Order: sequence, then C-alpha cells, then structure tokens
Amino acid sequence: MTGSLVIAGLGPGADAQVTPEVTAVIAAATDIVGYIPYVARIAPRDGLTLHPSDNRVEMDRARAALEMAAVGRRVVIVSSGDPGVFAMASAVFEALEDAPHWHGLDIRVLPGITAMLAAAARAGAPLGHDFCCINLSDNLKPWSVIETRLRHATRADFAMAFYNPRSASRPDTFAKTLGVLRDECGLDRLITFARAVSTPDEAIVTVPLGAATPEMADMRTVVIVGNSATRRVGPWVYTPRRAG
Amino acid sequence: MTGSLVIAGLGPGADAQVTPEVTAVIAAATDIVGYIPYVARIAPRDGLTLHPSDNRVEMDRARAALEMAAVGRRVVIVSSGDPGVFAMASAVFEALEDAPHWHGLDIRVLPGITAMLAAAARAGAPLGHDFCCINLSDNLKPWSVIETRLRHATRADFAMAFYNPRSASRPDTFAKTLGVLRDECGLDRLITFARAVSTPDEAIVTVPLGAATPEMADMRTVVIVGNSATRRVGPWVYTPRRAG
Repeated sequence: MTGSLVIAGLGPGADAQVTPEVTAVIAAATDIVGYIPYVARIAPRDGLTLHPSDNRVEMDRARAALEMAAVGRRVVIVSSGDPGVFAMASAVFEALEDAPHWHGLDIRVLPGITAMLAAAARAGAPLGHDFCCINLSDNLKPWSVIETRLRHATRADFAMAFYNPRSASRPDTFAKTLGVLRDECGLDRLITFARAVSTPDEAIVTVPLGAATPEMADMRTVVIVGNSATRRVGPWVYTPRRAG
Repeated sequence: MTGSLVIAGLGPGADAQVTPEVTAVIAAATDIVGYIPYVARIAPRDGLTLHPSDNRVEMDRARAALEMAAVGRRVVIVSSGDPGVFAMASAVFEALEDAPHWHGLDIRVLPGITAMLAAAARAGAPLGHDFCCINLSDNLKPWSVIETRLRHATRADFAMAFYNPRSASRPDTFAKTLGVLRDECGLDRLITFARAVSTPDEAIVTVPLGAATPEMADMRTVVIVGNSATRRVGPWVYTPRRAG
C-alpha cells in the first residue's frame, strides 16, 4: 500500500462550501488528523481513524501525519478555511525541512474557501480591490512587526483582512490594532466584523472605525477593513474596482 | 415569480473545485451571465439561457443581470475564481449605486476558490504568512499607484500575489514590476509563475527573481512572490508561519 498525505481545506464551516475534491479525499482516507473542532466535522465510518489534537501542537501533528503516510496510510490533515492561509500546510513543509527522507512522499495541498473570502461575500465585496491579509496572532511574531505591516498597508491604501484578531491570552493586540488604524485612516473608514461565517452562529456587522471596539472581535471573527474608497450601497459594503 | 441575482465563483477551472452551493444555484438558474470563457463552463439545458459577453463590459453585464432579476428571473453571474477578488461582485455593487430601486432585490455572493490559493496549494505554501494581493492591470489604476503599493508591500515583508500580470495591450507593466521587486528584494527572492492552475494546461515554475523574465507570465498566470523567509523544501516552496 502506498501512503499519501493531503492537507485539505474544509472552508469556513458549511458543508455546501467544501469542494468535491476535498470530499473525495476524505472519503478515501484511512486517517484524519487535525485540530479537535475541525476533525469533529468529519463523519466517522468503518476503516477511518480520527486523530483530533489540541491547538498549538501543529509541528507534532504534522510529523505524526507524515509518519503515518510513510508507513502506507492515506492521511488527510484537515484545516478550516484554506490550508495555505495561516493553517497546516506551512507547518507540514516546516516539518519536512528536517526530514529529507520524507521528501519523496505523495503530498498534496487542496485549497478551500478561506474565511476572509466567505466573509467578504456575505458583506458584499469589501475586498474588491488590492488587499492584504494579516494574522494578528502575536504567538508567531512580535507586535512591532504587526504595527509596521499595518502602517505600510494603510499607506498603500490596501483593504485589509485580519485573522485571529483576539484571544483571552492576548487581549491587547486588537485594541492596539484599532489604535493604529484610527491613527492612519481616521474615524470614518468602514470595518466589518464577520463572526462564524456560514455557520448557524454567523453574525456580520459593519461600522465606522470610530464606533469599533475590541470586544466586537473574538477568535471566531474575521475582520475586514476597507480602503479609502470602500463604501456602503444599500445593505452591502463594497470596494470599487478603480483606485482612488 | 421572485427574481434573484447570485454572483458565483467557479474556482480556477476544475469542476472538482466548484463548491456544492455554486453547483446548486447554477442548477436552479434561468439565466447565466458572464465573460465568454466562464459561461462556456456551464452545461446547456432546457430552461436555461446563457448570456456570454466580452471582456471589459462589466458594468453593462451587471446592469443586464440586475434587470433580469428585477423582472423575476433567477440569474447567476459566473466569475472565474472568487467573485469578490478582481471579478464581478464589485461591478454589481457599483451598478447598484445609481439604482436604489434595485436595493431590495435578492442578491447574494457565493465565494469560490480564488486563483492565488489554488496556485499556492500546487506550489506548496508560499502564502503561509501575511501577504497581499495586487491586480497588475493598469486599466483600472495608474502605474504610480501600483509602484507605491509594491514598495510598501515589500517593506512590510508581505508575500505577494499578482493577478492579471501581463497582456498584449500593456506589455510593460510586468517588466516594471519585476524591476521594482529586484530593487527592493534583491535577486534571490523566490517567484512562482502558476499558469492555468487546475486545467490541462497547468504549468508551475519557481525561480529566483534574478532569473525571472516578463515573458514567463501571461493573462492566465498568477504570480506569487515570497517574503524574505520563503524557501524551498524538496519540490515545494513555502513561507514559514513565523516572522523573520
């Protein structure tokens, strides 16, 4: 039996946003690996072993998946959203750096609907012009790097999407982010908070920066900030295709 | 009959990357509107009218779709990739600005797999850290805006994805882009050219910036430039999750 490892994106939550190629590899898998709430989305069946693991053990998870693939299992690592956007794909390639004996394995990444695009679709088209995408978790980088990126992004007049805006262990990062944004963009810039997109808990609200508070975001929220031209039309928010 | 307008993303090309919710709205549609090659992806059937149109008529196409929805048709505008990323969603909301009588219409945007994420998945995980996404078409903005954004993006150390890098009508933009990137990032930075991802014509190549030429891109290519830490591991390219 030839093993394989697929790093697959489940999209933000709704089964109707899981691509057929991801559904097919899950149906053919012997082992599903991933963070507990993502593995919980996979239906149990005979012949399939589920390996849920806790958050912040990405490297252990990646190595365990590679080991199983190396001994012939058909392993799928499931990520929420897209596996290449602040998710498991990068951790798997990092694990491969120290393991050249695994470089010949059959490894594939299958894209998924990432949270910012699902959120943008529900709000209208706030990412309809050039934009950037920043992980606000400061587990993986210092605040100074985040602040530098925020200031360049606003001066480039990018629309912006923020992942992992806020958690109990670092409550201040998002408050500081709002401060930088108000400093650079003023109080009228539109900001959209999209929580639990495509799930029964979905909640989407757009306000001017002057009315935004840190408590409007949690770890299930994607935050989208418009560029200088982003505006409302009817119940929607959109960014025009033209600069300025 | 109550009309509706859905702006739906078909993903980059493969049917296996079209989400079930998009497949379902196409199956229930009376009218499909879009750029000729995208409408060509929809199977004809009784009760379905196809309305293919040429490129660069986005506003006419948006208004025609809204008019049909207003008289009770179930209209789907199809975009390649994701409709909110340099595609038709923004054009529809722009058309609504002058048409408040249409603001009560049933309008929805359904996300799709956008080209940069499909391309990144095939290459490895080059967008695994903070990144930006820039449309290099200068139909919609002057070169000076593009250059400013490129310089801020490199100084923020974003990975970068470029859509519409090159066309016959503006052959110089991408050459100038490569010049700015070499100026800011040096010759060793990795750049990936991903052409026609997920189709039979797919071709993906990664080279250092010093070996990149304008001819390596065309309008079917998405270009991904790494950040300062992006590197190869085995046959893949990835950007580590940590800054620096």
